[in-house]
Amino acid sequence: MIKVGIIGSSGYTGGEFLRILAGHPEAEVTYLASHTYAGSRVGDVLPAFAHAPWVFAPVDIEEMAAQCDCIIAAVPAGAAMELAPAVLAAGKKFIDIGTDFRFHDTQLYKKWYGIDHSCPDLLPKAVYGLPELFRDQIKGADLIGNPGCYPTSILLGMAPALKADIIDPKDVVVASMSGVSGAGRKPTVTNHFPERTENLCPYGVASHRHTPEIEVQAGLYGKTEVQVSFTPHLVPMSRGILSTLVLKLRSAMAEDAVRELYEEHYRGEEFVCVLPPPALPQTKAVAGSNYAHLAVRVDERLGRLLVMVAIDNLGKGAAGQAIQNMNLMFGLDEGMGLRTVGLYP
Amino acid sequence: MIKVGIIGSSGYTGGEFLRILAGHPEAEVTYLASHTYAGSRVGDVLPAFAHAPWVFAPVDIEEMAAQCDCIIAAVPAGAAMELAPAVLAAGKKFIDIGTDFRFHDTQLYKKWYGIDHSCPDLLPKAVYGLPELFRDQIKGADLIGNPGCYPTSILLGMAPALKADIIDPKDVVVASMSGVSGAGRKPTVTNHFPERTENLCPYGVASHRHTPEIEVQAGLYGKTEVQVSFTPHLVPMSRGILSTLVLKLRSAMAEDAVRELYEEHYRGEEFVCVLPPPALPQTKAVAGSNYAHLAVRVDERLGRLLVMVAIDNLGKGAAGQAIQNMNLMFGLDEGMGLRTVGLYP
Amino acid sequence: MIKVGIIGSSGYTGGEFLRILAGHPEAEVTYLASHTYAGSRVGDVLPAFAHAPWVFAPVDIEEMAAQCDCIIAAVPAGAAMELAPAVLAAGKKFIDIGTDFRFHDTQLYKKWYGIDHSCPDLLPKAVYGLPELFRDQIKGADLIGNPGCYPTSILLGMAPALKADIIDPKDVVVASMSGVSGAGRKPTVTNHFPERTENLCPYGVASHRHTPEIEVQAGLYGKTEVQVSFTPHLVPMSRGILSTLVLKLRSAMAEDAVRELYEEHYRGEEFVCVLPPPALPQTKAVAGSNYAHLAVRVDERLGRLLVMVAIDNLGKGAAGQAIQNMNLMFGLDEGMGLRTVGLYP
Amino acid sequence: MIKVGIIGSSGYTGGEFLRILAGHPEAEVTYLASHTYAGSRVGDVLPAFAHAPWVFAPVDIEEMAAQCDCIIAAVPAGAAMELAPAVLAAGKKFIDIGTDFRFHDTQLYKKWYGIDHSCPDLLPKAVYGLPELFRDQIKGADLIGNPGCYPTSILLGMAPALKADIIDPKDVVVASMSGVSGAGRKPTVTNHFPERTENLCPYGVASHRHTPEIEVQAGLYGKTEVQVSFTPHLVPMSRGILSTLVLKLRSAMAEDAVRELYEEHYRGEEFVCVLPPPALPQTKAVAGSNYAHLAVRVDERLGRLLVMVAIDNLGKGAAGQAIQNMNLMFGLDEGMGLRTVGLYP
Repeated sequence: MIKVGIIGSSGYTGGEFLRILAGHPEAEVTYLASHTYAGSRVGDVLPAFAHAPWVFAPVDIEEMAAQCDCIIAAVPAGAAMELAPAVLAAGKKFIDIGTDFRFHDTQLYKKWYGIDHSCPDLLPKAVYGLPELFRDQIKGADLIGNPGCYPTSILLGMAPALKADIIDPKDVVVASMSGVSGAGRKPTVTNHFPERTENLCPYGVASHRHTPEIEVQAGLYGKTEVQVSFTPHLVPMSRGILSTLVLKLRSAMAEDAVRELYEEHYRGEEFVCVLPPPALPQTKAVAGSNYAHLAVRVDERLGRLLVMVAIDNLGKGAAGQAIQNMNLMFGLDEGMGLRTVGLYP
Repeated sequence: MIKVGIIGSSGYTGGEFLRILAGHPEAEVTYLASHTYAGSRVGDVLPAFAHAPWVFAPVDIEEMAAQCDCIIAAVPAGAAMELAPAVLAAGKKFIDIGTDFRFHDTQLYKKWYGIDHSCPDLLPKAVYGLPELFRDQIKGADLIGNPGCYPTSILLGMAPALKADIIDPKDVVVASMSGVSGAGRKPTVTNHFPERTENLCPYGVASHRHTPEIEVQAGLYGKTEVQVSFTPHLVPMSRGILSTLVLKLRSAMAEDAVRELYEEHYRGEEFVCVLPPPALPQTKAVAGSNYAHLAVRVDERLGRLLVMVAIDNLGKGAAGQAIQNMNLMFGLDEGMGLRTVGLYP
Repeated sequence: MIKVGIIGSSGYTGGEFLRILAGHPEAEVTYLASHTYAGSRVGDVLPAFAHAPWVFAPVDIEEMAAQCDCIIAAVPAGAAMELAPAVLAAGKKFIDIGTDFRFHDTQLYKKWYGIDHSCPDLLPKAVYGLPELFRDQIKGADLIGNPGCYPTSILLGMAPALKADIIDPKDVVVASMSGVSGAGRKPTVTNHFPERTENLCPYGVASHRHTPEIEVQAGLYGKTEVQVSFTPHLVPMSRGILSTLVLKLRSAMAEDAVRELYEEHYRGEEFVCVLPPPALPQTKAVAGSNYAHLAVRVDERLGRLLVMVAIDNLGKGAAGQAIQNMNLMFGLDEGMGLRTVGLYP
Repeated sequence: MIKVGIIGSSGYTGGEFLRILAGHPEAEVTYLASHTYAGSRVGDVLPAFAHAPWVFAPVDIEEMAAQCDCIIAAVPAGAAMELAPAVLAAGKKFIDIGTDFRFHDTQLYKKWYGIDHSCPDLLPKAVYGLPELFRDQIKGADLIGNPGCYPTSILLGMAPALKADIIDPKDVVVASMSGVSGAGRKPTVTNHFPERTENLCPYGVASHRHTPEIEVQAGLYGKTEVQVSFTPHLVPMSRGILSTLVLKLRSAMAEDAVRELYEEHYRGEEFVCVLPPPALPQTKAVAGSNYAHLAVRVDERLGRLLVMVAIDNLGKGAAGQAIQNMNLMFGLDEGMGLRTVGLYP
């Protein structure tokens, strides 16, 4: 039984870990740490756990490293880099849900996040935790930078086309739409219910910090320079991300040929489902699950490939993917505890 | 491994059975029958199952009775009574999600549902499947009338007060509010998204067919005549029922005393959670789960007891409860496959 | 042209005043005051006014009283009593959207709101601004306590039955359901979008501060003691209140007779619409309007009268009703500027 | 007083005409025709009009042409072309909300809509009713093809850049997101509330019929060939469209310069609001209104111009714009009856 410690367990991603791990046969949460709610009943903070006797503990990283096999941190940018060294020094594994270990280039990190990295020596050991792209490295890793929710959806949508070199990697236009849980649990006027319901808006236009993550990881995977115009939008729902990628085909291809390429690429991948036409992805079909639903279309008139991908931002986009990484790191069945189907309707 | 056949598996309750049973270690769905979608891929009809290779089969009740240990029917009123006899004759178990086996009194059934019962001889064997009230009978049953969603919430809220005889059973006023999935999957103008979002209305005022079900079962449980003023409302959400019961205390009681009575009554019940104050039930905390969350308050000024209960209408209010009944009928751990926590947020 | 000054104009009710008064032919907002946003562009705070050149002014009550004919305050409990005296002293009219002038009994006010009233001498002049109940007093008033949103819906539902003395005024059970805008614009975890969407809960059970307001005003109108069990619920929508009143008929009455009584009572009332069966009120039909939709049903089995009322909490429940009062106070056509129909769908 | 007849007045766009025209001082609806609901009370079909005494009339186009000054048709593709000739023959004006008079090229219309045009001789007289682009032609027109909702938002977003020739007109990528009311009132499983709430999906990928409308009208306005990759998405809300245009700048331009160009272009346009940074458009700010909110951003890194536009699909995207056209056609103040501000929150 893997002993898991979670830091930031009172937030949305933290709660999703508790929910998923409650059904994991080979892992259990033994340390629930929260900066904000230490001492509170978990059920008072996360009402779905009203029946649970648990109480949040304070964040004591040495103690956690001593007691747990794997520490998962769902904390703001800059906080995980203060926690990881102690965990690795204790010979335990660390998964950062945030951004601190997604970039090997500290300059780039500084540029977009404004933070000087405090443990650059650990970065060469950090693996970007997107199993469908980097499974082999993840298996041997002790330190994971778990991907962002938008990048997960977009990288899954681009990977087959990049690998097969059928698109121009510098002409990538993406519109993504996200549920509000991606913004976290801190209340704001922007996400106050009356302002957000029946409302739709773009945000972070030409400036969202997931842009370099997408470009760097797509570039590493495709071994080429990738440029992405990425525009996120906020949609009146709690969970779910849908990304629509508009790609430029290098030369004309029939839609069937592209779909076969995608199907072949993802054959054997348990959590990526290339939908048969006429189906298109919808976020509700993957809500609460670790699945990614994907469809491709070719616009022959314009020579463009359109790829649509739906995930749950808290599932495949955060906690689900982290558990998938944990399973790989500990040599378990990769999908263990993750086969729950989307809550539809 | 219990072999389960589901009739009406393309609807919302049917889909919920597939979702729950996918995680049940001792039962598997071996026969997915649908009148409407026989021959279709399940994933084309229920998009959360896009990855599943299943195809809906036609409804052939003899074949199902031969192949399965337990048949669950999620069909309209009047349809299950045509199916149950063949299943019982084959020595198998039958759970009706609908209304055909909830009443022993065929006159009352006829009055509210307008249907002559076609197998009144089976009714004495039918057990009302609310485990927290009638567990012992369920354990020995072959035929279950699975409770309605509203009655489940209301009976759980009344049971301790009825048993302890602290309320006037003829002065019960209930306002219930339900998500729209309770109305099923057939599209109507009333539940067309633009009309239902940001909208709230009562319906079935002084005439809803769950009224006699509540009164009869509460009466049987409390061994007294019960009269309920029941008003349901439709709320712009997919899942969830909240019932607020306004009861008249026979004599003054402190709130703490009532809460202790409720806690004592439900001690050991895995799926009923009496919330500690100041918590009040909220539907999202139980969404996708088999839990019922319950709180009590006493209005000393008016001598009234208020009980609020939240369930998922498709979970504890339908499919979850049916699996709980199935577990009891087959001698399994009652909560097997049902311990998933609510999808919050 | 009536010059109107609004205090608290950056909140939801304040914004609704601006929206309504933009279409009022005989009144204009000449002073938009905000404690929080003084100096900010109105369009930056209230995005529907992006095209407007207005800037919020600070709250300077003497200056406002000097410049305006009518001051409307949408401020927290306890704040309006500090503002009203200066306005009345200047010979101008004052409408308090909040609670400070709804009670003549300072003891009762203190008990429920915990505030010592600072100008009890003004209370005898204060009129409770529900035109359908107290029109004549409103016409001559300089000081209005504008009704709460819940009380408006409930008093409109009870008034005809009280006046005709067909119900027991001490056996009144009300369940109300409200959109979230009623809670104001201050963000909280409770009303953070991901927690509120697809969620439903009761709150303020047996303790909501609108209870005494309902009882007092119903008592004054019906000239009898009224006791109300009132339970509010929070529903995942922005606007709208629906109240379901369960009343005890003194003696059996046919539904048609009750409906005729209600229709007769409200004949000539422009903003109260008694719906013909089988219609029932729905909040969306009155969203953004000053209308109240009402339906009655009789449960002959239980001898109960059910009355359902829908309003927009920001319209008839706040700003719309205040404008209706203002029109009356200034001798204008009562419905001027208020005939906008609900935004459906 | 202009006498207006509406055909298809029981649908969402029809209802929006009734709502807007109820507040129009120089026009009144004198003929409400409905194929489906002739003989029904309007309030039974459109619940916001519960107080109105109106009854739907059958569609008798000769009678309508005789009685009315202006006929507005909100009918399916192919139906308006059967109605317009009689109206024009009677010397009256006709506004088609649908698609029959948006294209002068009958071949193109046939290709995308599959319909042979029955009155091609009228097409040279038909004007595309987007006042901000084609105001002068509209003023003299008797026959208007009212723009589609998506094209309205996209054309408003492209027009200044096209006119100033700062973008490549063949490299236009648009992601649009729409509320569900755009799909009309006919209930479907796709738009059944439980399936649509908390759900998000693309549709009509690389095949939506608004594509040629956008390309043709943008081309006419910009006097150049325009190619648009257009992907619409369905969002869980009733009203509102947001379009995000990703355009390729011909050469580097500072964001301020582009914004000034847009501001200058729309100076004096009452219903187009170029938002000052950091504001971005949000659909709720324009809900129920005729306003378009627009913002521009330049991604200097990629040399791209991003334009975001929000409208109400039933307002500026349909009924509001048609009234704006009617005002122009009859020589009235263009914004008469249309100055209602968005219903926020």
